[in-house]
Amino acid sequence: MAHLHQKLELALVSLDKSSLRATLDDYHLADIGKALAEFDPKEALPLISMFSLADRAKVFSYFPPYLQAEVAGLMKRHKLAALFSRMDADERADLYNDLDEEQQAMVLPGLAQAEREDLRQLASYAEGTVGAIMTSDYATLKEHWLVSRALKQLRLEAPDKETIYQTYVINAQRRLLGTISLRELILASPDKQVSELMRTEVVAMAVEDSQEHASQQIRHYDLLALPVVDEQHKLVGIVTYDDAMDAAVEEATEDAQKSASVGKLDQTVDRVSIWELYRKRVLWLVLLVFGAMFSGAGIAHFEDIIASHVALVFFLPLLIGSGGNAGSQAAALMVRALATGEVDKSDWAKLFSRELLVGLALGMTMAIAVYGVGIYRGGPEVALIVSMSMVVIVLVGSLVGLSLPFLLNKMKLDPATASGPLVATIADVSGVLVYFSLASVLLHW
Amino acid sequence: MAHLHQKLELALVSLDKSSLRATLDDYHLADIGKALAEFDPKEALPLISMFSLADRAKVFSYFPPYLQAEVAGLMKRHKLAALFSRMDADERADLYNDLDEEQQAMVLPGLAQAEREDLRQLASYAEGTVGAIMTSDYATLKEHWLVSRALKQLRLEAPDKETIYQTYVINAQRRLLGTISLRELILASPDKQVSELMRTEVVAMAVEDSQEHASQQIRHYDLLALPVVDEQHKLVGIVTYDDAMDAAVEEATEDAQKSASVGKLDQTVDRVSIWELYRKRVLWLVLLVFGAMFSGAGIAHFEDIIASHVALVFFLPLLIGSGGNAGSQAAALMVRALATGEVDKSDWAKLFSRELLVGLALGMTMAIAVYGVGIYRGGPEVALIVSMSMVVIVLVGSLVGLSLPFLLNKMKLDPATASGPLVATIADVSGVLVYFSLASVLLHW
Repeated sequence: MAHLHQKLELALVSLDKSSLRATLDDYHLADIGKALAEFDPKEALPLISMFSLADRAKVFSYFPPYLQAEVAGLMKRHKLAALFSRMDADERADLYNDLDEEQQAMVLPGLAQAEREDLRQLASYAEGTVGAIMTSDYATLKEHWLVSRALKQLRLEAPDKETIYQTYVINAQRRLLGTISLRELILASPDKQVSELMRTEVVAMAVEDSQEHASQQIRHYDLLALPVVDEQHKLVGIVTYDDAMDAAVEEATEDAQKSASVGKLDQTVDRVSIWELYRKRVLWLVLLVFGAMFSGAGIAHFEDIIASHVALVFFLPLLIGSGGNAGSQAAALMVRALATGEVDKSDWAKLFSRELLVGLALGMTMAIAVYGVGIYRGGPEVALIVSMSMVVIVLVGSLVGLSLPFLLNKMKLDPATASGPLVATIADVSGVLVYFSLASVLLHW
Repeated sequence: MAHLHQKLELALVSLDKSSLRATLDDYHLADIGKALAEFDPKEALPLISMFSLADRAKVFSYFPPYLQAEVAGLMKRHKLAALFSRMDADERADLYNDLDEEQQAMVLPGLAQAEREDLRQLASYAEGTVGAIMTSDYATLKEHWLVSRALKQLRLEAPDKETIYQTYVINAQRRLLGTISLRELILASPDKQVSELMRTEVVAMAVEDSQEHASQQIRHYDLLALPVVDEQHKLVGIVTYDDAMDAAVEEATEDAQKSASVGKLDQTVDRVSIWELYRKRVLWLVLLVFGAMFSGAGIAHFEDIIASHVALVFFLPLLIGSGGNAGSQAAALMVRALATGEVDKSDWAKLFSRELLVGLALGMTMAIAVYGVGIYRGGPEVALIVSMSMVVIVLVGSLVGLSLPFLLNKMKLDPATASGPLVATIADVSGVLVYFSLASVLLHW
């Protein structure tokens, strides 16, 4: 790809269309888009201007969103409008949302009435919903058509549709009646009717459904595209597998970051600004420090016993760390299983009772593991206190870690907020209380 | 879906083929597969036997792997062989690997010579490689064919191919020359030659490449399928988008679990046995306990200063927790960015210098946040020690968390092993040392 970058630089210096043409033929537009993203937007613009309108629209769709908006901001009004009318409906709507109001007003007049309505509609859906990734460039058939007519129609429409491999049968009111794949059409006899071939048990979603659920459905049914319908079961769009796949990967990234108490980043971690990185990390760190003060307060409460048995402090990191680790494990398992749809909220009770057994078994194993060290460093009494504390702390940590994602889910919050650090901080507090309470009772006794 | 379960139970009790047929028509086979997975395998078998062979092969592919193997183990030899010959090549190879040797020997004779070779080949690739998810059911064209001939051929082959939407042009030696989509074929004039239409800048992978990389490529180029070639650039298989999507989601799940120090589970978290869940969690927990003993040893080393200044213990959970949290954040960001290909090992130095700034800014913010509490609970000297320690601990934690995934990557280990708990345990040790060393120096001074 370094090679591609050089070729583009060369084309930029010479402003020679034919050498650019040769480069475009040798590389995939996805790679050209990626290479152009390395240029300064102001530098990239003359290059992009040399592209044909069709290539420009395509290469644009491979830019990261922030770059699309930046380059669009530098473009002349009529050029931007031309580009807009050529982009895929879903990409266009995403870009529209990234423009400022003045730019938005600039591009609208360049579009036909129907496109404008479509754009406004697509751009109106909230982030994370099916509406925000669906496209209106889908292919439809009528139920009374013959297969031959359907194939002819698809051939006509192919250049403008995101996919013609999955088609949708609608009636005059645009109600979705069924689906047919191009494979089925090609295999069928040309004089069969569409209505005879279509599958009527259709999986469809609503615009406000979550993207997470859409990609689960696409995976579950191995679909190329998922139809989106309104309350009257009228077809309003489709979500294609590639957008669903991108959504699934982005969701997994967001969840991975949340699992470590990092807020959602605007851009990839290598491009995001230092300020943004700081901002998205500091909030939880500070909140968790104040959470940790409860542990501190617990310790302060037991200052006397600590002063008289300093050896107890040796075991503190090990005990509270273990509770936090077991809790993080349980939380991570639940957050991911909820995200992939492997479990749902109704499974909590069953999973809780399993965790009771697993947590107990883990705690007892850990208790045995530290008993010897307890004897060696503090004698039999301390060993007993440490081991008993370990069982309780690991069990409590596990149960908290397991339950917190479900609780957040119930409160309509993202289960992924149950991060390892949050669970560990909660487990720490309970660990301090359990450990020193047990120590007070058993040592004074 | 509860409804579907009842219908299947009814069909099972009555053993009535026509009521089963009606149920099959009303539901997607993916849902029927899921519903059957709720039955005991022994119970499910008579139901499955009532399916047509084609439906049986399809519904089988929707079972989770452990269930496929169990049901296969209960089937009669000739029935299993028939099922095998009907399954998709890639699914068949996966199932074959899950059978015991006796069963494997049972199914081979039922297959044609070519199928047997194909099965042995597909089943031979290691888990996690492209070979393990590729299929040999792809559609090929010859370069000298006319479009009309190509379409006729595809129509003939369609029922046996995993996809006909993306086709591969090969020469007599099976070398991959280019690709054409069905959309392009349909749009082209019937008397054009395949060689005129095909794209020759083909993205292809090798059987030993990672599935992670394959799904990155499929996402990057928005492909329906990715060709797999050998050293002579001969076509040996394709990876379809749906298998790549499943692989990407499974990788993300595995990474999410590893990020919390949980080993790879055989099955989903709601189905896995309690023993397996215990086993995959206990290993890291015990290892980390012994890691935490270094923190304990550090504390023991400073027992005198702790005994004379018990108030210092108040700040211990808060300081070591903060280092661990900042480190977990950095590690989670890097693990995910390495997994999605957003960054690679060459980016370490750049990211490290950024982290130096971010870590310092985070540490100073946290130092300010705890300074007041330090004054209140321990006076100005303790406040100074706690604040200074905080800056160092958060910075060290951040840099360790950022670097560990790269180090593991360099050692050819999975970066995701740099879990939150592991990073936190390392940060704890350094936190104890920094805090009490600073305290010893400043308080004795």
